[in-house]
Amino acid sequence: MDMKKFIAVIGGGQCSKEEARQAKEVGRQLAKRGAILVCGGLGGIMEAACKGASSEGGITVGVLPGDDRQSANPYVQIPIVTNMGYARNVAVVKSAQAVIAIGGSYGTLSEISHALQSGIPVIGLNTWSLSRNGREDKSIIPAQSATDAVDKALDLAAA
Amino acid sequence: MDMKKFIAVIGGGQCSKEEARQAKEVGRQLAKRGAILVCGGLGGIMEAACKGASSEGGITVGVLPGDDRQSANPYVQIPIVTNMGYARNVAVVKSAQAVIAIGGSYGTLSEISHALQSGIPVIGLNTWSLSRNGREDKSIIPAQSATDAVDKALDLAAA
Amino acid sequence: MDMKKFIAVIGGGQCSKEEARQAKEVGRQLAKRGAILVCGGLGGIMEAACKGASSEGGITVGVLPGDDRQSANPYVQIPIVTNMGYARNVAVVKSAQAVIAIGGSYGTLSEISHALQSGIPVIGLNTWSLSRNGREDKSIIPAQSATDAVDKALDLAAA
Amino acid sequence: MDMKKFIAVIGGGQCSKEEARQAKEVGRQLAKRGAILVCGGLGGIMEAACKGASSEGGITVGVLPGDDRQSANPYVQIPIVTNMGYARNVAVVKSAQAVIAIGGSYGTLSEISHALQSGIPVIGLNTWSLSRNGREDKSIIPAQSATDAVDKALDLAAA
Repeated sequence: MDMKKFIAVIGGGQCSKEEARQAKEVGRQLAKRGAILVCGGLGGIMEAACKGASSEGGITVGVLPGDDRQSANPYVQIPIVTNMGYARNVAVVKSAQAVIAIGGSYGTLSEISHALQSGIPVIGLNTWSLSRNGREDKSIIPAQSATDAVDKALDLAAA
Repeated sequence: MDMKKFIAVIGGGQCSKEEARQAKEVGRQLAKRGAILVCGGLGGIMEAACKGASSEGGITVGVLPGDDRQSANPYVQIPIVTNMGYARNVAVVKSAQAVIAIGGSYGTLSEISHALQSGIPVIGLNTWSLSRNGREDKSIIPAQSATDAVDKALDLAAA
Repeated sequence: MDMKKFIAVIGGGQCSKEEARQAKEVGRQLAKRGAILVCGGLGGIMEAACKGASSEGGITVGVLPGDDRQSANPYVQIPIVTNMGYARNVAVVKSAQAVIAIGGSYGTLSEISHALQSGIPVIGLNTWSLSRNGREDKSIIPAQSATDAVDKALDLAAA
Repeated sequence: MDMKKFIAVIGGGQCSKEEARQAKEVGRQLAKRGAILVCGGLGGIMEAACKGASSEGGITVGVLPGDDRQSANPYVQIPIVTNMGYARNVAVVKSAQAVIAIGGSYGTLSEISHALQSGIPVIGLNTWSLSRNGREDKSIIPAQSATDAVDKALDLAAA
């Protein structure tokens, strides 16, 4: 089967309007270019990205922390109910071939970390930056726009 | 969004030809009737069910125990990479509104147990039967055929 | 380090007085014979077993499903906070070299299944019995008493 | 039961000699002051911390990612076998009331993130520093020495 590319979009369950606009545009472009969107299934960035992808007929997967498919945002088509709390963050990123991080708090940072630990490329839009023992860590690839983030994610997604 | 029904098909990673035939027929009928197939993503019953669903253009989700999407059988369209080993059995059944068990060994029994614990209906085709402290437990609903199993699963799947 | 034997005691979060009496006696004898008790950390059988072990100065480990160490019963000395719900059932049994099941419902059955799947011996006291496709499965080793269960568990615990 | 304090020590599975020296001293002082050491159970920082704690008769808990208690370092007294891969990082930090991070790579960063997400204090020794969207995040509390780290961890550990 010719497998589509899976791209995770991660970020806060709550976010600014500008972040939501970016996430929606990322979702929209991923769908237009045939990628499947993976996310944590909840609100904020996750919902905005799923809304964008849905507007272009894209497929959206939400890997939920809780016990109830009803907790998924209304644009999730494939809800995965883990009931594993934040341990599901590992599955969100491991199910993707590249990750786009938009803003986000410590949950997002844990997903960035799990992705980098697994060798999955992370593209960042106004998100965390890291220094390890005083030296800058440049593993998060900065993007200038939603389009730039999607370009980079699809380029870097392992075949 | 008008959510489709999610039905899990569980059973051994290795199985008899007759079991594979039943699983394929279950997958085929689930797809024909618009349900999304969830499974553990590997071989045996899981592969046969996905093959059947794919033959009718259905959507197949594989919640994988390992770290590699390549471990999914070739008919899985949406591989979820958990790297959580058999803890993923919980997510397989919780992501479904009803479960069809075909044959199976202890892994299947753990999925049956997790489903019953969560109040998710389990339909059985030549699978485990249970007694608790000497009294028969009739929670696994027996089916006489693939068609009967699919009928019962779709009837019982919570809206 | 000369590692002590780890024995899991599993069973319902609610139980009868007679089951609690058995669990307490199992815990007591495990402690007297130098084993470390692993359990799910909550009430019922788990609490009774921990109480018994504590009464003999034994070590008790509770692998909790929730997010709060306060949910442990008062006799758990080492609470492991997983926040992974019933996925923690896997860790309860895998952390043990043998499992003693007393009564129990579907959660207990999932633990029995995960143990058998992992090749960890399961000793049963008035608990589930299994048939696979009409044929009795005798993998659960029956015990006649708390003492008999502890004898068998310690004999079978892999070095 | 008068519960002891649980402190997690996190860091790389491989580390420098200086980091190992610090981790051993942290473990030693935690044990001397009556705390129970929680870690990921493997080598590097985890082994050094456990070795230090053991030298003072302290209790050491190792929450292992794999399927085999033999993968624990020789100073782990209570191995918890999760077989959940890096999802176990969540359980490592949630089982502690404060976390001491020494050096470390992306796995350690994921543990720092999960701790901060859960409101568990993180004390850092030559470890990651964070900026969120260009603004420094000061949630990781810097320590100047092993003694300072243990002082701060025990002060901050919730009762």
